[in-house]
Amino acid sequence: MTDVADGPPTAGPGQDPDFDPGALAKTLLHTIRVATLATLNPDGAPFATLTAIGLDADGAPLLLLSRLAAHTQNLERDARLSLLLAQGGSGDPLAHPRLTLTGVAARTTDAAIRSRYLRRNPKAALYADFPDFSFWRVGLGGVHLTHKSVT
Amino acid sequence: MTDVADGPPTAGPGQDPDFDPGALAKTLLHTIRVATLATLNPDGAPFATLTAIGLDADGAPLLLLSRLAAHTQNLERDARLSLLLAQGGSGDPLAHPRLTLTGVAARTTDAAIRSRYLRRNPKAALYADFPDFSFWRVGLGGVHLTHKSVT
Repeated sequence: MTDVADGPPTAGPGQDPDFDPGALAKTLLHTIRVATLATLNPDGAPFATLTAIGLDADGAPLLLLSRLAAHTQNLERDARLSLLLAQGGSGDPLAHPRLTLTGVAARTTDAAIRSRYLRRNPKAALYADFPDFSFWRVGLGGVHLTHKSVT
Repeated sequence: MTDVADGPPTAGPGQDPDFDPGALAKTLLHTIRVATLATLNPDGAPFATLTAIGLDADGAPLLLLSRLAAHTQNLERDARLSLLLAQGGSGDPLAHPRLTLTGVAARTTDAAIRSRYLRRNPKAALYADFPDFSFWRVGLGGVHLTHKSVT
């Protein structure tokens, strides 16, 4: 695991010198549109669900969540979350790089965030204005890139 | 979301009467071999990573984890976890059913668990005996089936 939270990531010992974890993390962030969202249940236990994600201009993940969903109710109580961005497709998912983000979500009514999200997820326009839906922006804490691993 | 934690799930109002959430949950549990694992960081915040899963005879998920991984260190401190089992493949992952499991993991040296896990994940035999690896069995708390949703 390459921790890129505290500055630009660099290739570690034994790694391919051409391996650029910063660029790889950016690629994952810009190409993956559905992530696992981990929130905290009322008792503080983790709770993993699936969600679509958007991306703010500075790379902060954007969410469009219904208040009816358990993960949204979790975020209303404790806004800390983690997102796992992993490539789908064929083959062993563990053989592909993936990104763990940690951070804190905040509800937003910012029109720019709304249009950025809907540009990336146009189908969401169908329900974005339903009264139980709102946009959230994730203030990033840590970014952890897993290049390849068995577990 | 269909909560199947408190007894056999049944079709809800407006659902296809042929929809069998119990059978669907079982299918997901028996076919999906890689899941998102949500654990708790030292500060209690959620942390989402990817892991291979096995299955005990009674449907309890099995994990083979390295002590070097952050999620394992998390489980050693607080054994509560959540697993998201979602179908990969083509198309929109949100259009497919997925399963959120919550529970508590416990390390085990049970030889039967080891063979069950390795039968399902034969490649793991390459590293299962490395000193930093051990098997964990998840005592299930809740099972939440999401049939189809937009968020």
